[in-house]
Amino acid sequence: MEVLVGTIIHSTWDNPMVIMDKSALGIQNNKIVFICSSDELHDVKQKYGFSEDSISRFDKGEFIMPGFIDTHIHASQYVNAGKGLDLPLLCWLNQYTFPSEARFSNIDYAEKVYDKVVRRVLMNGTTTASYFATNHRAASLKLCQVIARYGQRAFVGKVCSNQNSPSYYIENTEEAVAESESFIKGVQAMKNDLITPVVTPRFAISCSFQLLQALGKLKDTYNLPVQSHLSENKEECKQVKKLFPDSAHYVDVYRKSNLLGPQTVMAHAIHICDEELEVLKRTETGVSHCPNSNMSICSGLCDVRRLLEKNIKVGLGTDVAGGYHPSMLNAIRLTIITSKLISLDRPESYKYINYKEAFRMATLGGAKDDRTGNFQVGKDFDAIIINPTCPDGPVDIFPEDTLENRVEKFIHLGDDRNIKQVFVAGQKVWPRD
Amino acid sequence: MEVLVGTIIHSTWDNPMVIMDKSALGIQNNKIVFICSSDELHDVKQKYGFSEDSISRFDKGEFIMPGFIDTHIHASQYVNAGKGLDLPLLCWLNQYTFPSEARFSNIDYAEKVYDKVVRRVLMNGTTTASYFATNHRAASLKLCQVIARYGQRAFVGKVCSNQNSPSYYIENTEEAVAESESFIKGVQAMKNDLITPVVTPRFAISCSFQLLQALGKLKDTYNLPVQSHLSENKEECKQVKKLFPDSAHYVDVYRKSNLLGPQTVMAHAIHICDEELEVLKRTETGVSHCPNSNMSICSGLCDVRRLLEKNIKVGLGTDVAGGYHPSMLNAIRLTIITSKLISLDRPESYKYINYKEAFRMATLGGAKDDRTGNFQVGKDFDAIIINPTCPDGPVDIFPEDTLENRVEKFIHLGDDRNIKQVFVAGQKVWPRD
Ligand SMILES: [Zn+2]
Ligand SMILES: [Zn+2]
Repeated sequence: MEVLVGTIIHSTWDNPMVIMDKSALGIQNNKIVFICSSDELHDVKQKYGFSEDSISRFDKGEFIMPGFIDTHIHASQYVNAGKGLDLPLLCWLNQYTFPSEARFSNIDYAEKVYDKVVRRVLMNGTTTASYFATNHRAASLKLCQVIARYGQRAFVGKVCSNQNSPSYYIENTEEAVAESESFIKGVQAMKNDLITPVVTPRFAISCSFQLLQALGKLKDTYNLPVQSHLSENKEECKQVKKLFPDSAHYVDVYRKSNLLGPQTVMAHAIHICDEELEVLKRTETGVSHCPNSNMSICSGLCDVRRLLEKNIKVGLGTDVAGGYHPSMLNAIRLTIITSKLISLDRPESYKYINYKEAFRMATLGGAKDDRTGNFQVGKDFDAIIINPTCPDGPVDIFPEDTLENRVEKFIHLGDDRNIKQVFVAGQKVWPRD
Repeated sequence: MEVLVGTIIHSTWDNPMVIMDKSALGIQNNKIVFICSSDELHDVKQKYGFSEDSISRFDKGEFIMPGFIDTHIHASQYVNAGKGLDLPLLCWLNQYTFPSEARFSNIDYAEKVYDKVVRRVLMNGTTTASYFATNHRAASLKLCQVIARYGQRAFVGKVCSNQNSPSYYIENTEEAVAESESFIKGVQAMKNDLITPVVTPRFAISCSFQLLQALGKLKDTYNLPVQSHLSENKEECKQVKKLFPDSAHYVDVYRKSNLLGPQTVMAHAIHICDEELEVLKRTETGVSHCPNSNMSICSGLCDVRRLLEKNIKVGLGTDVAGGYHPSMLNAIRLTIITSKLISLDRPESYKYINYKEAFRMATLGGAKDDRTGNFQVGKDFDAIIINPTCPDGPVDIFPEDTLENRVEKFIHLGDDRNIKQVFVAGQKVWPRD
């Protein structure tokens, strides 16, 4: 038994931000076994029979919170994060994205890039990430090995695309399916409980209906999660309509391919109609909201409130490198700003997403399973310890700041310097010893 | 003579970002005396007669650029940066802004807060800031002393308000004018060439026409700059119309008060008509664009392209604490995003502000005089040395990244860790020895 004593912050479905001052959290076999007020520590100690040695008290002013869950990030595009941002989307894809991804046929190159990105997001407090790799099976498996080395929890997809892609970076249908299956088996052979393969069609435009259906079958065969893109920009939506004339709408393309469901996460979902929303809800498909990307590549503003009001599960994503920032704190900040901007047209009636709600989306909202996202008893212990006033840090705290102010300041002004330790499944994974 | 050799980056009015690899910059008596290619170093050495000892070469991969100019920041509100961001504007003013500012009647409190904010913006590379203090003369002078201690260049305003303010934080007209004049004399008595007092009516709503006119006179008497707020949100614009029925529009209120001119900077200017734009242009009044604030307190999106096309001078501001972030890098990023969002409605015809243009606005665009903003010969040497790959820094650079990529990555992902040294008027002011 390990017991942490101090300020604990997390979300529940009833309350976007529960702030528990002077609390205790017990961990056994990497799982949370109790969470209580520190007043009850004595009783709990007797009940579980642990000694004073098991208790770590974190410093005054620090707090512990669930690790961030990045529900959409292109690990292979990390080299391009923060560059080429003046280019229109198509130029950007052709000049940066596709050539970059094509280079992952070289496994050494892949390892170098993947090492940097996993390290970077881990130090920024991302305990779970849902990664897009590239079309290459070997490099995608290399990504899994890098993740395993760092001890992060991850969902990893070998990307599939068999049409409307550059000639130097395209597969045929059989290849895409066979390599995906082989990738899945490769990940499963790693026997790493923290790493799950994900069925990953790039998006409807770059996959034939035949390929989408084959991937839908793969999902069922192996009972796996699915990730892809949905309704990111208007031009894309028009093209999907043309390419899939038999589908009622964009969501219908994925529905017909058996790709929706409670384990599916679709990124963006900006330009979707009520009918599509209904299908997402009925199938319990989740959405990854990626505000930095939506703004940076001029996709539009996703009305997250509308999704939440429909009870659709929404997590946040950095969408590196469409989004330029690898930190989920940035995703939180731009989620709030996006929502405030949507409220401009109707300040009276629209309740914009506040920082507590965005915090929940960045943690519990992105949890695909019932193992992560908050500190509920029985869940794995995925957490970060925050020091808002770390030496040489970016946040100034004043004597009049309340505990809640400190949390809000970290959310708005903090960075990796404030993230003192990162735990995944009970193990300290950052800083590395 | 001091000579810096390395990569030099700055803006001119013709070119938003000039990147000079392998260049040299000579400084004598705190001013720039030459800037040339390092190939010409031998000739320049002979011309000016300096020795090899005068030359500092900065490390490979580093670059030097002009310091940032923050054209609008409320030093007194820094305690609130990053908190209370879910509140509607009026609640926020009443719960945070006014009570915070009122506390500056206590000079010790003032000194503590001002020390933190000046330190914070300086380490973030802001070599010039245009500060709003509070209504209090003594505390405003204290701000000047703190700035002098740090060696920053600054414009500082004792704020004036004689109406529509809480009873605990308001002046009468005579008091506001007398205290402003006394503040001006106090600053001038410091004989600090880097610190200039600024005539600072809070904004039209909180100043009677009588007070505005008196401040317009003060501006002429002492030949001083002016700063205030203009057309920040729609509700405010409506109120101004009501309060000043004899003025044709918001800008006209300031024009009639003799507060416009080439030394005036108005923050925001979001909701202004073409006629107002015309007056700003004719009077050569500058605008401080504060995108974080505009988004965070739901003011609206300022169409900077429209202002630039009218040849209005636009600088950037953090507007702490309406804006939550004290770094001008954040202002640059959100300027780009704001402009991209405006382009959403007309993707074909609208040219959004790119990162080079935003970089120019954050440096040259905000220069009120001809002493700062870029590395033109004859200007003061206000500069920052950037290391995009500093140890434990936030930016990952890859072998394929060009020099321009490195600059763009710093702009999008960098922070104070990448700012190795800060110079104001030739003196190294950060890190402090
Ligand atoms: Zn994506
Ligand atoms: Zn302001």
